[in-house]
Amino acid sequence: MEKRARVLIDCRDEKGLVYKISKVFYDRNLNIDNNQEFVDKEIEKFFMRSVVSGMFDVHELSAALKEVIPEDAHVRVIEPKAKKIILMATKESHALGDILIKYADGELDAEIECVISNHDFLEELVRRFDIPFFHVPAEGLEREEHERHVMKLIDEFEFDYIVLAKYMRILTPLFVGAYEQKIINIHHSFLPAFIGANPYKQAFERGVKIIGATAHYVTNDLDEGPIIAQDVIAVSHRFEWRDMQRAGRDVEKIVLSRALSLVLSDRVFVNGNKTVVF
Amino acid sequence: MEKRARVLIDCRDEKGLVYKISKVFYDRNLNIDNNQEFVDKEIEKFFMRSVVSGMFDVHELSAALKEVIPEDAHVRVIEPKAKKIILMATKESHALGDILIKYADGELDAEIECVISNHDFLEELVRRFDIPFFHVPAEGLEREEHERHVMKLIDEFEFDYIVLAKYMRILTPLFVGAYEQKIINIHHSFLPAFIGANPYKQAFERGVKIIGATAHYVTNDLDEGPIIAQDVIAVSHRFEWRDMQRAGRDVEKIVLSRALSLVLSDRVFVNGNKTVVF
Amino acid sequence: MEKRARVLIDCRDEKGLVYKISKVFYDRNLNIDNNQEFVDKEIEKFFMRSVVSGMFDVHELSAALKEVIPEDAHVRVIEPKAKKIILMATKESHALGDILIKYADGELDAEIECVISNHDFLEELVRRFDIPFFHVPAEGLEREEHERHVMKLIDEFEFDYIVLAKYMRILTPLFVGAYEQKIINIHHSFLPAFIGANPYKQAFERGVKIIGATAHYVTNDLDEGPIIAQDVIAVSHRFEWRDMQRAGRDVEKIVLSRALSLVLSDRVFVNGNKTVVF
Amino acid sequence: MEKRARVLIDCRDEKGLVYKISKVFYDRNLNIDNNQEFVDKEIEKFFMRSVVSGMFDVHELSAALKEVIPEDAHVRVIEPKAKKIILMATKESHALGDILIKYADGELDAEIECVISNHDFLEELVRRFDIPFFHVPAEGLEREEHERHVMKLIDEFEFDYIVLAKYMRILTPLFVGAYEQKIINIHHSFLPAFIGANPYKQAFERGVKIIGATAHYVTNDLDEGPIIAQDVIAVSHRFEWRDMQRAGRDVEKIVLSRALSLVLSDRVFVNGNKTVVF
Repeated sequence: MEKRARVLIDCRDEKGLVYKISKVFYDRNLNIDNNQEFVDKEIEKFFMRSVVSGMFDVHELSAALKEVIPEDAHVRVIEPKAKKIILMATKESHALGDILIKYADGELDAEIECVISNHDFLEELVRRFDIPFFHVPAEGLEREEHERHVMKLIDEFEFDYIVLAKYMRILTPLFVGAYEQKIINIHHSFLPAFIGANPYKQAFERGVKIIGATAHYVTNDLDEGPIIAQDVIAVSHRFEWRDMQRAGRDVEKIVLSRALSLVLSDRVFVNGNKTVVF
Repeated sequence: MEKRARVLIDCRDEKGLVYKISKVFYDRNLNIDNNQEFVDKEIEKFFMRSVVSGMFDVHELSAALKEVIPEDAHVRVIEPKAKKIILMATKESHALGDILIKYADGELDAEIECVISNHDFLEELVRRFDIPFFHVPAEGLEREEHERHVMKLIDEFEFDYIVLAKYMRILTPLFVGAYEQKIINIHHSFLPAFIGANPYKQAFERGVKIIGATAHYVTNDLDEGPIIAQDVIAVSHRFEWRDMQRAGRDVEKIVLSRALSLVLSDRVFVNGNKTVVF
Repeated sequence: MEKRARVLIDCRDEKGLVYKISKVFYDRNLNIDNNQEFVDKEIEKFFMRSVVSGMFDVHELSAALKEVIPEDAHVRVIEPKAKKIILMATKESHALGDILIKYADGELDAEIECVISNHDFLEELVRRFDIPFFHVPAEGLEREEHERHVMKLIDEFEFDYIVLAKYMRILTPLFVGAYEQKIINIHHSFLPAFIGANPYKQAFERGVKIIGATAHYVTNDLDEGPIIAQDVIAVSHRFEWRDMQRAGRDVEKIVLSRALSLVLSDRVFVNGNKTVVF
Repeated sequence: MEKRARVLIDCRDEKGLVYKISKVFYDRNLNIDNNQEFVDKEIEKFFMRSVVSGMFDVHELSAALKEVIPEDAHVRVIEPKAKKIILMATKESHALGDILIKYADGELDAEIECVISNHDFLEELVRRFDIPFFHVPAEGLEREEHERHVMKLIDEFEFDYIVLAKYMRILTPLFVGAYEQKIINIHHSFLPAFIGANPYKQAFERGVKIIGATAHYVTNDLDEGPIIAQDVIAVSHRFEWRDMQRAGRDVEKIVLSRALSLVLSDRVFVNGNKTVVF
């Protein structure tokens, strides 16, 4: 039966990769519906994302590809289906709400397994959408202790990504290390500016004329993971910091949604502390 | 008791207006918290929006202002309170949903009286937020006949604005004339380009590199009312028209929300077919 | 000797194109430094731009490629060298000046053969850069008659592109037909809005909140050729139309420069009335 | 004789300021062509910029205004005329060139007194515009010693502003202190991100998706003066750092030109480490 797959390959660059890979597709009579490549010349690394259709077996295709490319290569042959995500949030509803509306409309190519929060502010909103909500209070707990409660809950689910939709707690290496390249965050600032707490107040005090938001993978360096998407909005001296925050929220939710959509359609490669986005 | 009001004045321009108006405030010992003026030199028209605080009577203040300015002047002294709005939509949820999320969070400075739709697609979503939903089907009805049904429903409510959050029917002069300067629309295009149906398909076929959205007051000229806000997003040849639509939806909802927030805080003057936005 | 070429191919889409093309490169031991493909699914057309390096003969490579791809294909194997351009302008200096500054700095990957104008306003500026300037007055001439004077001049030069840097005369089919896909224009508006004369006045009167500029190939439909690049800038009610024009000029020159740079590096395919930009 | 002036006032905020100031205008039968006010509520400071026309004496008007407002007030009554500027640059021509083209066209509301550089790279370009160019080499000199040479030269001119159009040397307190609120710089980055040397390389290594530029007044804190204007441009993983630099240059020159135009029309107040821009 005709089917379709996203093929993602990254490996050391060498001569003939496009030829060898496209030969594997050609030999199986597959159609290439979409194809993008990129070579990071600084580190001589090759990235390729192809959407192929035809008759194929995922394992056979994957094995055939691995045979023709360098040994260090990562090959993923992914059949499109809704990925599973866990949302985490704290008190603000804008980023979470944007995802919920898209979800309810069938516009989000994902299943939301649950929403986890360190507060109960968002419970009512989440329940309106018939999605499980878990309140895991952090009061009186060490940071890692709280994370262990959250992780126990998370580990009851199958999931592809954890999306931090304004989850306002700093994560320790315990948590981050457990879900490498699986956590996506929206940072309420135009990174690398205004790292840390209350960036809108920082931006206000600096008198900037533009504010922004950054969606990125979470790594152990606070606010320092690979950037997936960024956007900005103009502000002026007439903006008090709460106005900046309000304007910023619209940018935050759009940027997170855009990054999520890219990740869910397997368009993002992590490349060290950077990303390749096809 | 100390209170606050927004004072909106527009009139024929003449010498001494700022002096005369600020004297009225000064004589009453009012504080000016915020003040913006604009003169449209082409038509010699003066616009002023002041936020004043102190002890005053709305009617006395309004009368005093009218005495010192030209006879044709419009003077509005508005005590800040949540305005009442009626939302109209058809099938798409993004613009409506954005408003609902803000509403549920207390971020929208308005009361939503109800949502009216010519379809029942959005009923489930609206009911999740405990807001009255009315389905007024248009099948088999003349355009004006359908509008009369909608208007009968609308007229049961007190309201300040009707917000068309992707209401996909053309309105006749019957409807538009009944609610002058009270209807706000989001147009799924960067007006004045791509007027009319399916602008994303038009944009796709024209091969544009940027798409946009326009929020405007509705007048009897299709897609031709005074523009309140606009924004854009970059696209490329890789966007099929549905991708353009998807990207456009994010712009649409942001632009409508921004325009709505401006209107709800009495920052928008209609000036012929243009607006003055403070 | 090692050299480098840009290989541009467009043809009817069919299975195996990437494989067959990359095999030609592989068989000649060429390195692919950069590769981008795109399939326009609506019309089933394939576009590919590869930068290859190694030992090759341009004609042999070109012939080998033509053998493996559909007969209707266009194949171009281009060795990077500065292209030759003719600039045309009228009275405004901003778009022309931006190109001259880049040229003087060695930042423009082109040789400027000459500047042609229907006025002599810009002569002094052009001469400052030691570039030939030709004044071809249009007074008293029929449109085509004037164009014949210009064309006679143009045809004395070898050139790759004619760049209209605010050349404010409408071109007839005589002129446009003579230089198909060779004329690039900057339109002082966000096409398809405000087609025709004085778009800033039109934009001002329409009360838009954003203005833009469009760089495009010139075809016989006025302001209707394939778009290469667009950008925008926010304006407000405080902008008189001359302020819009002033703000617009900055966008115009940036957009033209960006389009020119894309065209000079052979990154733009014309695809009917659209472009594919790699 | 009818004339026009820009009146700039900043002082401690108190009740009645607009009334008292507009009364001064009214008593002299002056017309207010344009008027903007702003109150910084955090520090209770009032800013006002009025454009007035009529019959008046600058000194009498200034004195009358000072009488009605708080003692700490700064009052400036400025008759519009081309300001005098000194340009400083190093090797890159884009920001300088943009100003020169505007100047040659009469689009810059300023007289350029001279261009000073620590290198001779730009001499040829500057001489094309018949503007004095001074090369003040820094080789073998202590930083302050070099600055003393430059200052000696500067002090031979009357000038209103020094514009650093990519002057790539760090200035010491000696220089900065001598020309307080008179030095405008373009920083090749979206401040406060990527402070210091080679921000494009920093941005490249951080993998950002947007780069920007910042025009600001120069103070003794490196890259930390009040921001006048900022803008950004989108980039992708396909941009090598030199591509980022090239794209950034277009933003830099536009932002510097915009800031310069604001400063030359007396629209910018410095407010601590921020600006108020009318």
